[in-house]
Amino acid sequence: MSRCLISHVEVKGFIERCMTAVGAKQHHARSLAEVLVEGDHRGHYSHGLNRMDMYVKDIQTGICAKDGEPVVEKESAATALVDGRNLLGPVVGNFCMNLAIKKAKDVGIGWVVAHNSNHYGIAGYYAMQAVKENMIGMSFTNTSPLVVPTRAKECTLGTNPISVAAPAKDGDSFVLDMATSAVALGKVELHERRGDPIPEGWGCDPLGKITTDPKRVLTGGGLVPFGGSEDTGGYKGYGLGMMVEVFCGILAGAQYSKYIRTWKVTDRVANLADLDTPVLAAGDPERMNMKKCEDMGGIPYHINVVKYMNECARKIGVNPLLPCDKIVSG
Amino acid sequence: MSRCLISHVEVKGFIERCMTAVGAKQHHARSLAEVLVEGDHRGHYSHGLNRMDMYVKDIQTGICAKDGEPVVEKESAATALVDGRNLLGPVVGNFCMNLAIKKAKDVGIGWVVAHNSNHYGIAGYYAMQAVKENMIGMSFTNTSPLVVPTRAKECTLGTNPISVAAPAKDGDSFVLDMATSAVALGKVELHERRGDPIPEGWGCDPLGKITTDPKRVLTGGGLVPFGGSEDTGGYKGYGLGMMVEVFCGILAGAQYSKYIRTWKVTDRVANLADLDTPVLAAGDPERMNMKKCEDMGGIPYHINVVKYMNECARKIGVNPLLPCDKIVSG
Repeated sequence: MSRCLISHVEVKGFIERCMTAVGAKQHHARSLAEVLVEGDHRGHYSHGLNRMDMYVKDIQTGICAKDGEPVVEKESAATALVDGRNLLGPVVGNFCMNLAIKKAKDVGIGWVVAHNSNHYGIAGYYAMQAVKENMIGMSFTNTSPLVVPTRAKECTLGTNPISVAAPAKDGDSFVLDMATSAVALGKVELHERRGDPIPEGWGCDPLGKITTDPKRVLTGGGLVPFGGSEDTGGYKGYGLGMMVEVFCGILAGAQYSKYIRTWKVTDRVANLADLDTPVLAAGDPERMNMKKCEDMGGIPYHINVVKYMNECARKIGVNPLLPCDKIVSG
Repeated sequence: MSRCLISHVEVKGFIERCMTAVGAKQHHARSLAEVLVEGDHRGHYSHGLNRMDMYVKDIQTGICAKDGEPVVEKESAATALVDGRNLLGPVVGNFCMNLAIKKAKDVGIGWVVAHNSNHYGIAGYYAMQAVKENMIGMSFTNTSPLVVPTRAKECTLGTNPISVAAPAKDGDSFVLDMATSAVALGKVELHERRGDPIPEGWGCDPLGKITTDPKRVLTGGGLVPFGGSEDTGGYKGYGLGMMVEVFCGILAGAQYSKYIRTWKVTDRVANLADLDTPVLAAGDPERMNMKKCEDMGGIPYHINVVKYMNECARKIGVNPLLPCDKIVSG
């Protein structure tokens, strides 16, 4: 396979030229160019030059704003809420990260959330900016729904990446930059084109069942959270995906409402879901256990545990021991 | 199966009595009792009363300190480093969480790390304390090594839980409280006792290969990070497990050195690892790509991408276009 070798400077300059040609401000174009080239440089070609046309079109069609700068709507010494003014994602991302770094220098940590933003490239780019300042950086974003939560049948979560970067010895670093879906949709498409099955744990069919058939994932099914099925801990990836919605969508406002809207358009999750295995949110299984305890009027312990603990207590001279007069079954 | 129903108050009082009987301070005993009963109440019986004897023994043998209180070693407006003085985990956990909440009230966010601490029960207990104050809470802890990183053959990571709790509407809440291993070791032991195979993606054999045989996991193998094998994204769970080491071990000091020591005792990861699939840390794959780019003197792009982008550029009147004179193969 033939590939063209192009220097960073050339690619950056090219992206800047294309973006300014359609009306982006010079420094906005540069912000975009830098994160895209960094994506390519790090080997994430799906988030690099390959996507430039999407950003060009976003500016051409007015989907993204050309004018203005992000503004701080609300802040405390360590936190801020930013209105991205619908500017290019990297413009908003850089604004937020710079503000977070400034706050971290002042008070030890900075946590900034934005609404009214757009595609911002690789999450790791922003987390790594903190590393340059010898700090730990974190970056999260929610995205368009492609992921079907554990037990559900509809795509209601984005691939919601998590990035955490930390400086290490001698210029080394730890750079976690991962989607909370098992894989990117592109990987499933690639298998479909080749006619290959996908590994168990990448995606599900329209009924929410894990499938190895890429076609079923792409036609009415969806990606699953990383961890795969419920048996292999997919609910953990789902929980992390929701965590990103909480951090980015709910804390910031607008993006979460977009998620809600998408969810409501489908509006069938509750009706379609199997009543024996309802879709759960983080904390629900515990809530059900607590409800059970309340209904029973106490916490049910296995009798052997109680006996064993009482034996421990006896050895160290403790009195009274645990009561064991209410026996329940189950 | 017969179970004894016991009220919260009774269990708490019992644990307090046992702990004070062996010399724990009353309020330290109460801190422990509260988190253990909460564990049981939420249905995580593995982290409740069931573990009381371990804490009793820790105090009896002097493994945990009875006297003193945690102290702040270093702090900024939003952050602190706490010396747990080797006290019971819940004593240190509560101290840190209270401090973090206080800081969050003052400056918007608080991030507190501790060294010299011990088992602190369910991570969610601490995150949920923030929810009571209408805040988002986070809690992480590194633990003893039970997890084999992707591509590795030795247990070098703990089950390293992540908890994030957020208040929701009408008293509801989001409470993520998950180990970064696929499952708890107890689940593998249970399958072994029953003679059942385990699902793919729970554990590996002594050679680091995913296995469905619980015996091999328990004798020289280990748990795998959640996500399972490399194909199904296990490296993401591994990355999150390392993130917890960074947050808890490295930021705090001592616990990371314990991790290092364990790792060095085995001291064979590098020698045992398959040289074709070396164990990687988050950021390594990108580093390899960047190295490749540097060696080549540019970023290799597929010629079709370059052509397509140049076509986009041409349409919007951009000049010069991307150069395509250096053709490389591969």
